[in-house]
Order: sequence, then C-alpha cells, then structure tokens
Amino acid sequence: MKISSLFSSSGEWARDGGPHHQIVISSRVRLARNLRGHPFPGWAKKNDRLQILELIKPQVEALPEMEDALSSYLQELSALEKQALVERHLISREHAAKGAGSAVVVDQKQALSIMINEEDHLRMQVLLPGLQLRNAFKALDKVDTTLETKLDYAFHPHLGYLTACPTNVGTGMRASAMVHLPGLVLSDQINPVIQAINKIGLAVRGLYGEGTEAMGNLFQISNQITLGEPEEEIISQLNKVIEKIIENEENARQVLLQKKPGTLLDNIGRGFGILSHAYAMTSKEALNLLSFLKLGVDIGFFPPDRQKDIDDLFVITQPAHLQSIASQPKLDPEGRDTLRAQIIREKLRAFPNPDTSKVVLPSPPTGETHHE
Amino acid sequence: MKISSLFSSSGEWARDGGPHHQIVISSRVRLARNLRGHPFPGWAKKNDRLQILELIKPQVEALPEMEDALSSYLQELSALEKQALVERHLISREHAAKGAGSAVVVDQKQALSIMINEEDHLRMQVLLPGLQLRNAFKALDKVDTTLETKLDYAFHPHLGYLTACPTNVGTGMRASAMVHLPGLVLSDQINPVIQAINKIGLAVRGLYGEGTEAMGNLFQISNQITLGEPEEEIISQLNKVIEKIIENEENARQVLLQKKPGTLLDNIGRGFGILSHAYAMTSKEALNLLSFLKLGVDIGFFPPDRQKDIDDLFVITQPAHLQSIASQPKLDPEGRDTLRAQIIREKLRAFPNPDTSKVVLPSPPTGETHHE
Repeated sequence: MKISSLFSSSGEWARDGGPHHQIVISSRVRLARNLRGHPFPGWAKKNDRLQILELIKPQVEALPEMEDALSSYLQELSALEKQALVERHLISREHAAKGAGSAVVVDQKQALSIMINEEDHLRMQVLLPGLQLRNAFKALDKVDTTLETKLDYAFHPHLGYLTACPTNVGTGMRASAMVHLPGLVLSDQINPVIQAINKIGLAVRGLYGEGTEAMGNLFQISNQITLGEPEEEIISQLNKVIEKIIENEENARQVLLQKKPGTLLDNIGRGFGILSHAYAMTSKEALNLLSFLKLGVDIGFFPPDRQKDIDDLFVITQPAHLQSIASQPKLDPEGRDTLRAQIIREKLRAFPNPDTSKVVLPSPPTGETHHE
Repeated sequence: MKISSLFSSSGEWARDGGPHHQIVISSRVRLARNLRGHPFPGWAKKNDRLQILELIKPQVEALPEMEDALSSYLQELSALEKQALVERHLISREHAAKGAGSAVVVDQKQALSIMINEEDHLRMQVLLPGLQLRNAFKALDKVDTTLETKLDYAFHPHLGYLTACPTNVGTGMRASAMVHLPGLVLSDQINPVIQAINKIGLAVRGLYGEGTEAMGNLFQISNQITLGEPEEEIISQLNKVIEKIIENEENARQVLLQKKPGTLLDNIGRGFGILSHAYAMTSKEALNLLSFLKLGVDIGFFPPDRQKDIDDLFVITQPAHLQSIASQPKLDPEGRDTLRAQIIREKLRAFPNPDTSKVVLPSPPTGETHHE
C-alpha cells in the first residue's frame, strides 16, 4: 500500500458511522508494551533500538490483520507524510519526530496502527467509528494476544505490564472517544460538563490530544488510570460516561431547537454560507465551521448523504493533507488557506440549499412578509 | 401620496445611477432660510411657530415640483414613519423629534424635501444619484428663487441669509456627497484620506450625518464654510475633492485586484455567503456586508443588473423600514434581526453564483487540483 493513497479522504474504518455516530466520531483503544530485557526506547542506544525494531517488525507484519498493510521505517517517511499520519491519528506527534530505529505499520482499513519504538517498544491502537470502545478493545486484545505468543513482553506479576512512563504501568491501556459537542458549546454548558468529567478522573483534550486546543467542538475523552483495574472495567466506566455525555448533548440540541431555533439555524447557515463562498480559510476556522455543518446534517438541515463529504473535509483540509493533494511542491500558509477554501467550495457545490421546513423559526413567522 | 408607499424600495431618484455611481451614492445640497420679522423656531412660541408654518406650507405645496407630493404635519406622522424618513435622509434626526408646529413636504421622486420649522423656518434639500452636486444646486436654486418671490426671507446685505446657527449664515448652504470607499478601507488608506479632507476644511461623517459611525464603508463629505464664498465656488471646490477621492478609490480597487485578489474575493465571497444564509442579522452587519456585495457588482463578480437589489437592501433593511414592512405590530430587535436576514436571503436567491472568471487568483492556480 502506498502512503499517499491514504490522504484523499477519511479512513475506510470511518465509513460505516457506527453506534451514536452523530455525536461520537470515533472510539480508540491503545496498548503500550515492552520487551523484557531491553532498554526502553528513550534510554536505548541506536544499535539497541535497531535490534528491538528488527525483533518486533516482522512479527507485527506477520499478523493476519496486517495483510497488505502500510509498513514504513520512520526515516523513509517525509516530514509531510508523518504530519499527515498525525492528522489521521495513526501515529502520535512524538512518533512523528522519530527517525532511524522506529517504524509504523498500519492496516489497510487504517483501523489498526502499530508504532514501534515510540515511547514504548510497542504502541498499538484500534480506531473504530462511533461508540465502540468494547469492540475496539476486543480487536486490539486479539492482536496483543497473538503478539504475546511471539514476543517476550516485560510483565511484572504485581504491577502488570511495564512501561517507560509510570502513568501507563499496569494495563498499558488508554481508551478514548472523540465526541462532537456543538450543542453543549452553543448552550454554554460545555465547561461544567468538562469539569464534571475531570472530577471523575477522566481527561478531556482537544483534537490532537494532550495540550491541544479544542477546535470544531471536538473533544477527546479518555481514562487516566491504567493501574489497579481490569481493562474491561476501565472500558465499561468510560463507556457509561460517554453515554451520559451523548444524552447531555442530545438534550442540549433539543433545547436549542425548541427555544433558540434562530440561533441554531443562524450558526449553521452562516457556516454553510462562509464555507461555500470564502476564498481563504485557516484550518481552525474550517474545523469550527464544518462542525456546524455536521450539526446541520444531524438535525435534518442537509440530507444525510452529505455527511460523508463533511467527514472527508474534516480530514483533508488539515495542513499536511492539503499539501499532499496540492499540485505545487510547497505551499506557504497563504497558499494553503486559498487551496483549502477552494477544495471546500468545490465539495459544497453538491449541497442543496438548507431545508428548514422541519424547523420552527422564531418571530417573525416564516410565512410571507407583508410588503406594502 | 401615502407615506407607507415610500418604504418598500430605494427612492425613485436613485434609479438612474448617475455619474460615477459606482463610488458616489448620492449628491445632496440643502439651503437654510428664515422669514424676516419672525423668531427662529427654537425661540418661537407655539403660536408663532403655527403662524410661520401656515405662511410657508401653502407656498411650498404650490411649487410645481411638489405636484402629488407627500405633505405632513409632524404630529400626523408616527414615530416609525419619522424614523423611516430619517433613514431615507428625507428629514433630519432633529426634525423627527418635532411635533405640532413643524411639517415636511417631499416630492414624488423623493428628490426634493422641504422641512418647515426645523432649526430654521425652511430647510430644503435636493438629493440626486451619483456625482451631481451642480445639478442638485441648480434644481434647489430654482425652488429657492420661486419661494423667495412668495416669502420675505431674512437677508442681511453684508452677511447674506440669516440662520438660527451662525455656522449656516451667508449662503445657508450645505453640499455633500455620500461616497462608498471599500477599496480605501480594505487597503488601510481611509484614515490618511479622511485627515487630508479635514485639513482642507471639509467634514467627513458617517451614514446618518454628524456624530454617526461610518458603516458599510459609506462616508458623507460636506462643506463646512457657508460664509464669504459664492455657492457655485463652494460646490466647485467640493466637486474637485470628490473627483479626487473617486480617483483614489478606483486606484485602491485596482491595486487590490492586482496585488490582493484573494483578499478582495474572500471579503466579497464571505459577505455574499453570510448574507445568503444567515438567519439573524443586525443592521450594522447588513450594511457592512452589503458594501462588499456592492463592490462585487462593481468589479464584475456579480452581473450589473443586481445593483438595484443591493441598493434596495441598503434602504429597506434599516430598522424603521423593516418594521414598516413587517406583518407584526411591533418587532423587538431580535425579531427585526430575524426578519432582516429573511428579506436578504429571499432577495439574494435571485443572485447567480459569483463569477470569478475575470479575476486572477493567487497561488494555488484556479485550475484543477491534483488529487492523488
């Protein structure tokens, strides 16, 4: 598989939507594993790292899930390709900074991704659409079990799996869901909700994980604790919280539709108008406006078959993706903003005008205006 | 003529465009006159004012220019009607505050308007489209000459016409042009231009005259001096300045088109997108976005026959006009914003998509984008 073939649309894993896909974009589970008797990547000398890599990579490539996979040494990837993989959440920002001694293997559907010599020897993740934390864990657990028969994992009978950073010791698992919460944001309820989530020991982060800003009303919610609880229990607790957030978001949307339909329509309409007619747009503005467009599909303002276009735009308007589909060798930020606006305008040309027939507008009534 | 018939579109006087109409919206000349031996309106007792009114009103109504005119005592007009007349620049904000003892007479084309007992006994104005200061003065001078044969004007052989406020003594004339300068605003040249205009003794004001904010990139430029120079000389000097401003604005637009076509198109495109799809809009935002739409017609982005729609929207989206065409008795600001957005959306539905074929876009080229 050629890496550039990844970048023209959203990943195949995202096609089916999945349960609660209007609010939960994706579910992700990752496991951190290390080999016994080898230094962690951060401590390892270059030769150690190369040796570890050559122990692990063939086993990962031999996984039945990895048929026709993309498999690359990090030094073979351009900065642009690495950045695009980060934008697709297939590798971490930390891993993108790596060179010789590290590698990444991604399955054909872009659902399973395994980083070798990131912070740990092995970081593997499964990404599924909608709320499917249990399915993601099951799929990843199967991969992990297979690999455990081939590789000698560093495991301590009391602590569990050993990891480079103590916050990952035990299960080595991080589970997260990417949720789209425009209703809670528009109705000024997002901050109390985030505070409540933090209080019960879960983390709320922006689109690209730790330390990144929330854009496009997208929030990543994940467990913090990896030690002392079985994986199924952690997943189950996170799942409950996400279900509660879905309920809150659905309520917020209903209340907005009933009490402030004008505000809601105005946000969605303006978003559509600007996206359809701008000639320059930053990636941040694009995300924020696409969020309203997505909400517009959810509430029936646009036909459901337009969801796919919006999902694609969320992905391909990110800087590295844009650069990778540009005809020019290197775009400056201004050039990217122009190309981004052009791609969005072209995609939205297929959109019909918003259909507000299902939505009750506030005074004045939607009926005829009286021209004297 | 019924006053409400005025409010559904822009005035008939504006139909023809006039010279330099892309930049000069309108030319206006007004004269202040008072009757000899009668106190100025501000000093006059109510009975004096009523007596003055009954001396003047029949003479104004008898003018050949005032056939089928709208003639109203101020107390007969509702607050809404007065406000709408202010929005159309047919009466001053001061006059709108008047009640019994004052009147207004407006000709059928809404080109000639005469206020009785405003600050002076007589305030008469002619409003013409484009740059037509000389024509406006000629038309008004004719009206003034006719009235002077019927009414005994207060005139001093050394000072000229006497007025309530000393700043009007002499000619009693104020000439002004409403200019649309988005090019100078977008290229950050507007402040030096305003300073230069002020330095040569002319005033630059916002849309509604003294003390009002500049909105929609519209500026009113007028003479300050009324004493010591003949009317033709004042008009001629103002005319020269306006011609210079037109040149500056045209240059600014050319430079923007050549050097920053992306910025220009982005502003116009976004304006069009928001106006076409918003569900709530303040009057200030509407003016500012309509300004870009007007510029879009000027540079060929939209067909020229759409200019009339934009001109109408400039007028009918103002608060009192909106209220007067609403089907409900009294709209609150939120209701007005909703109705304003609705009227604009409906009007813009007839607009074709912007045509950028004549405009060269910056990198990336407008050609195909290369999807790998």
